[in-house]
Amino acid sequence: MGKEYRSQQKQNETRTAAASERHRSSQTRPSASSVVSKMASGNVNPELQRERAAASFNIRELTHLLDGGSEKTERRKELEKLFHEDPEFKTDVPQCYLTYSEAYADALQKCLRIYQKAMVLSDPREILTVADAILHDSTPVHVHFVMFVPALMGHANEEQQAKWLSDALTMKIIGSYAQTELGHGTFIRGLETRATYDPEREEFVLNTPNLSSIKWWPGSLGKTANHAIVLAQLYTKGKCYGIHPFMVQIRSMEDHAPLPGITVGEIGPKMGMRAADNGFLKLDNVRIPRENMLMKNAQVTKEGDYVKPASDKLNYGTMVFVRVLLLDMFAFNIARACTIAVRYSAVRRQSEITPGQGECQILDYQAQQYKLFPLLGLCHALRGMFANLMELYKQANQELEMGNLHALPELHAISSGLKAFCSEMAAKGIETCRLACGGHGFLLISGLPRLYATTVAACTYEGENTVMYLQAARYLMKCLAQPQVASNKSAFHFLLEPSTLNVPPFNAKLKGHAAIRQLIPFYRAAAYKHVHRAHKKVKSLVSTGLTQEVAWNQSQVDLIIASRATIYYYLGLNYLDWVEHAAISEQLRGVLLRVCHLYLLHGIYEQPGLFLVAGLRDENLEEISGLITELLKSLRPDAVALVDAFDHHDMVLCSALGSYDGRVYERMYESALKAPLNKTQVHESYHRFLGPLMKSSL
Amino acid sequence: MGKEYRSQQKQNETRTAAASERHRSSQTRPSASSVVSKMASGNVNPELQRERAAASFNIRELTHLLDGGSEKTERRKELEKLFHEDPEFKTDVPQCYLTYSEAYADALQKCLRIYQKAMVLSDPREILTVADAILHDSTPVHVHFVMFVPALMGHANEEQQAKWLSDALTMKIIGSYAQTELGHGTFIRGLETRATYDPEREEFVLNTPNLSSIKWWPGSLGKTANHAIVLAQLYTKGKCYGIHPFMVQIRSMEDHAPLPGITVGEIGPKMGMRAADNGFLKLDNVRIPRENMLMKNAQVTKEGDYVKPASDKLNYGTMVFVRVLLLDMFAFNIARACTIAVRYSAVRRQSEITPGQGECQILDYQAQQYKLFPLLGLCHALRGMFANLMELYKQANQELEMGNLHALPELHAISSGLKAFCSEMAAKGIETCRLACGGHGFLLISGLPRLYATTVAACTYEGENTVMYLQAARYLMKCLAQPQVASNKSAFHFLLEPSTLNVPPFNAKLKGHAAIRQLIPFYRAAAYKHVHRAHKKVKSLVSTGLTQEVAWNQSQVDLIIASRATIYYYLGLNYLDWVEHAAISEQLRGVLLRVCHLYLLHGIYEQPGLFLVAGLRDENLEEISGLITELLKSLRPDAVALVDAFDHHDMVLCSALGSYDGRVYERMYESALKAPLNKTQVHESYHRFLGPLMKSSL
Repeated sequence: MGKEYRSQQKQNETRTAAASERHRSSQTRPSASSVVSKMASGNVNPELQRERAAASFNIRELTHLLDGGSEKTERRKELEKLFHEDPEFKTDVPQCYLTYSEAYADALQKCLRIYQKAMVLSDPREILTVADAILHDSTPVHVHFVMFVPALMGHANEEQQAKWLSDALTMKIIGSYAQTELGHGTFIRGLETRATYDPEREEFVLNTPNLSSIKWWPGSLGKTANHAIVLAQLYTKGKCYGIHPFMVQIRSMEDHAPLPGITVGEIGPKMGMRAADNGFLKLDNVRIPRENMLMKNAQVTKEGDYVKPASDKLNYGTMVFVRVLLLDMFAFNIARACTIAVRYSAVRRQSEITPGQGECQILDYQAQQYKLFPLLGLCHALRGMFANLMELYKQANQELEMGNLHALPELHAISSGLKAFCSEMAAKGIETCRLACGGHGFLLISGLPRLYATTVAACTYEGENTVMYLQAARYLMKCLAQPQVASNKSAFHFLLEPSTLNVPPFNAKLKGHAAIRQLIPFYRAAAYKHVHRAHKKVKSLVSTGLTQEVAWNQSQVDLIIASRATIYYYLGLNYLDWVEHAAISEQLRGVLLRVCHLYLLHGIYEQPGLFLVAGLRDENLEEISGLITELLKSLRPDAVALVDAFDHHDMVLCSALGSYDGRVYERMYESALKAPLNKTQVHESYHRFLGPLMKSSL
Repeated sequence: MGKEYRSQQKQNETRTAAASERHRSSQTRPSASSVVSKMASGNVNPELQRERAAASFNIRELTHLLDGGSEKTERRKELEKLFHEDPEFKTDVPQCYLTYSEAYADALQKCLRIYQKAMVLSDPREILTVADAILHDSTPVHVHFVMFVPALMGHANEEQQAKWLSDALTMKIIGSYAQTELGHGTFIRGLETRATYDPEREEFVLNTPNLSSIKWWPGSLGKTANHAIVLAQLYTKGKCYGIHPFMVQIRSMEDHAPLPGITVGEIGPKMGMRAADNGFLKLDNVRIPRENMLMKNAQVTKEGDYVKPASDKLNYGTMVFVRVLLLDMFAFNIARACTIAVRYSAVRRQSEITPGQGECQILDYQAQQYKLFPLLGLCHALRGMFANLMELYKQANQELEMGNLHALPELHAISSGLKAFCSEMAAKGIETCRLACGGHGFLLISGLPRLYATTVAACTYEGENTVMYLQAARYLMKCLAQPQVASNKSAFHFLLEPSTLNVPPFNAKLKGHAAIRQLIPFYRAAAYKHVHRAHKKVKSLVSTGLTQEVAWNQSQVDLIIASRATIYYYLGLNYLDWVEHAAISEQLRGVLLRVCHLYLLHGIYEQPGLFLVAGLRDENLEEISGLITELLKSLRPDAVALVDAFDHHDMVLCSALGSYDGRVYERMYESALKAPLNKTQVHESYHRFLGPLMKSSL
């Protein structure tokens, strides 16, 4: 920074009182903006240069691994060129400075442009990444592409697809997926919207029977969509057949006005995802032709007879797939937060470790390292878990097509538990990164509040986390109650083997792979212990005379602990396997193993209670503390390189604290000058309120 | 809800297609608003009525205890009448729907009005509570009253006070307290702004020597203040004497324009505290008279000689006082979050415990109870801690006036640790409440995102938490190294008694007070264990040849654990004492003791690792699980009454989910209709972007 300071000093000196006078009289933005940009544009902060030069591994090699291969990296770079450098997508003002209405309009314009250009995008993940980088937010047509179109493919029969699909793909029809209601979310059976068949007119009549059944939350529904797939209780011949999907046009194709019987709007500001356009929908005797029920699976005949679907497990696959994609999002977001916090911590100097030796980079403090470095491990763990789960999903899908449903229940349980655990860990991790940036992390331009909001939202959407943990627990209890469930092929077979608890004593002297490998049995034993403890609790409550259901409810706390411990083990095991089997140089593997080692030790040190009842001993904790101290020290020189390897484009980070060039304070100051309240030197409210008060002889 | 539904049903039926047609053609807000308000205005949700009727204790009695006496409750009610019911403070549109500029103007207008009416307010806490209730946010003159005026009193000599104080009190002068800079926060010695004395003109020349020394964060500074107390490194006769306060006029008293040499503005949007008007300030050769240095303590003579202050510990007291007030804020915010989440959980029904028996209130699920009920304990613990710390502060202050500084270091350490621990616990607790409300907690109108943002901000301001924990740890280590520090009168004397670790075995069969009291020795032993472990770690690193400072840095993780464990114990002990000694009926005490019992058991069950190394045994955890199950069940009927006892006015809660009447879905829907995007049925951007695209033959 020294050079910059000197250059600014000089400019300060040459700036005369006259210049200041100009400031004072002109009621516009302060002009210091130009001073700052001249000051250091193009320079990279010397601290970061030094850090990068010290890296002990090939950053590009790690980037390829994280991307899933060098071709994927190339492809990403291409897209960055195509999209991030398109001047149409540039904005002068940070998105967070826009009003709600401006932000919606801006997002709508840009995302339509993205989708027009998107013919080149083959993978929906690519679209999501590009859209995120450009909009820094969800988009008003996200649900259209991610849920409406897939639902059409999954639930509409051939004629119906012929009728709607091509219009949907060219965005003549823009759709929402209207499932959640004011009164019901995760518990889908409880939805109250009704579709009653009228055989006389061969129509369904849709109604919102009460306040709590107003559709609430669907993305794209508020202002954007002109159609919606509405999930409703199907009534025909006086009988209810449960939840089914119906295609409902909600707005005029002429002027976009809501159609008769439709009350539709946006649900109001949220912690994040401003442009997601979440909406509400009230249906008053809305009539649709019989053919608008999506009839690939169940059907209603002209006469009103209900025809059952072939299987009711067909939706399992889609749910799992959405959760696989979520893992990818968690990995992406926590990696961005780590990048911001680690770079900032290398630039920021504050206080002294040894008095008189000058201020340290805050990355030199152990407390800061302990906050951030294990999160690098979480990034890698999630990346590896995503790759693995995608593989499992593809296998299960292939088996499904051959009529074999065997793998689905376990995959469903794993994906439920992982969704809950990983959303929780990622959100907490991002907030840790934010707090590690001190007060500056509280500013929206740090980029961190947005990442937190987007990620923590996933703790309650796509299945509320507590419910997800309990779903996973239900499967684990089944493994104990029906041993055939956890067969040899099951990842949870160990739950049936009491020898799981016989963990070899922790040996702090082991080196290399063996030092890390020895930790897995502790994680496995912790899972075993807590699953059996929860099982025992349910059984003992039943033995006091409670019903199974009531006993289950009174054991929820322990069931959730059991789920968490099991997923903790599953994720850790997968992570270590991923690093050990990656096709990479031994030099890179060495670094990644140290990150993994730290991650696993940190997991124990943060929750020793899980492990102390499963083989770990008190004195081991002191040994682990020593190992953690050594690992933090040894990873310190590679920290910046490890986040550089995520290779996030500055536009993707969208953070004054985290940009590649480390011009932290310059960017903060430049951004502030564009803040809404700085449009004028004197805010208009001064003339209305403050001025009169100050001049009164109060 | 049944009745309401039926009444809406009826209205739906009579609403004809013509009415819907009207909807469609009018490009204005949907008119369903009036329907909803008619539907249930004035009614209290029957679930809540039932809950309230079932309370086992006198709610009013608890309210008096929490307020600190029945007179304080009366006083609060008076103020509510005076302020909350003043039509000038009513707003039609939720504050969170305003733009930044509108929100600032709105807050400015209202807070000026509050302070004009505030002659009746004797206690600064009253002003803060009133302002919070009305503005639902910080205020643009908060820092003026909370920091600028007190700093004037603390640092200005008599002549200076005569010159500025009355203008400050009548708000002719509005001031900010400009300490933090872009590059330095908690480490105050590192601040870089300079005030150089010029004996020729008898003036100080103030400068911002570089980018990182731009003042950044001070509240009220952005657009509101015309003066600031600027903290700067004092230079005279070529020597630096460290940080001192200077009075600087920054804006014209005529037209509010920034004065020559001053660059000032707002720092941009934050996660919360939109109206706090945090600002930046750059000083270019700004000259002020010598008399503008605040000279109550240190002075500079006309000739430029520096005169040292009598003592440098005089600021200790103020820092402690600010932290006492923060405890009050944490207690207030977590209590509001609990109120919102518990009431919502009583209104919300979702899924079934026993199939066929109907949907449950989500408050009936053990997992939900386990999230929320221990937080009621945290509310009480903070309330009791605040009362106790205020007492300690007053005592220490009295002693200080008699020249006795003895109590200050321990009080300072305790208040540092408590600030960190309680801000962390309160913020996490509020986020737990928010997540316990599912997706709806993500909406700003739930009131919960704001409470989280306001509270979590305190984790990094007024001393960053990690630094605070380490400050407390420094004192604890001193207790071990210099046993005279932890004398008999010290709260930490137990650290010198190895018998602290001899905890009587946990006895799950104990009843009443004894059952609860037995937990304290476990908390104390855990503190002992972890303080000594950290101490041992520092010592052993020193013995390997590291300097004390480097060893300290490499032990930060364990030092923080030691601080946390000690404060955990200190807070728990104080909580139990508070409940045991409160002048209340035995019926109320019975309920409060059960809440306290749950809080202490929950503390152990959430972090068993702290206790398993300090006397607790594996099998005790199963017993504790059983006790927790019983306590959750037994507190369930009193849950709504316990939050009602906080007695938060609806305006103070400002939450669609948490209002006293429980009209959750009605309020959500009513609020949504006022959302910025619902000003028109068709958003203007449709005509610019979506319409043209849909009509193109893409």
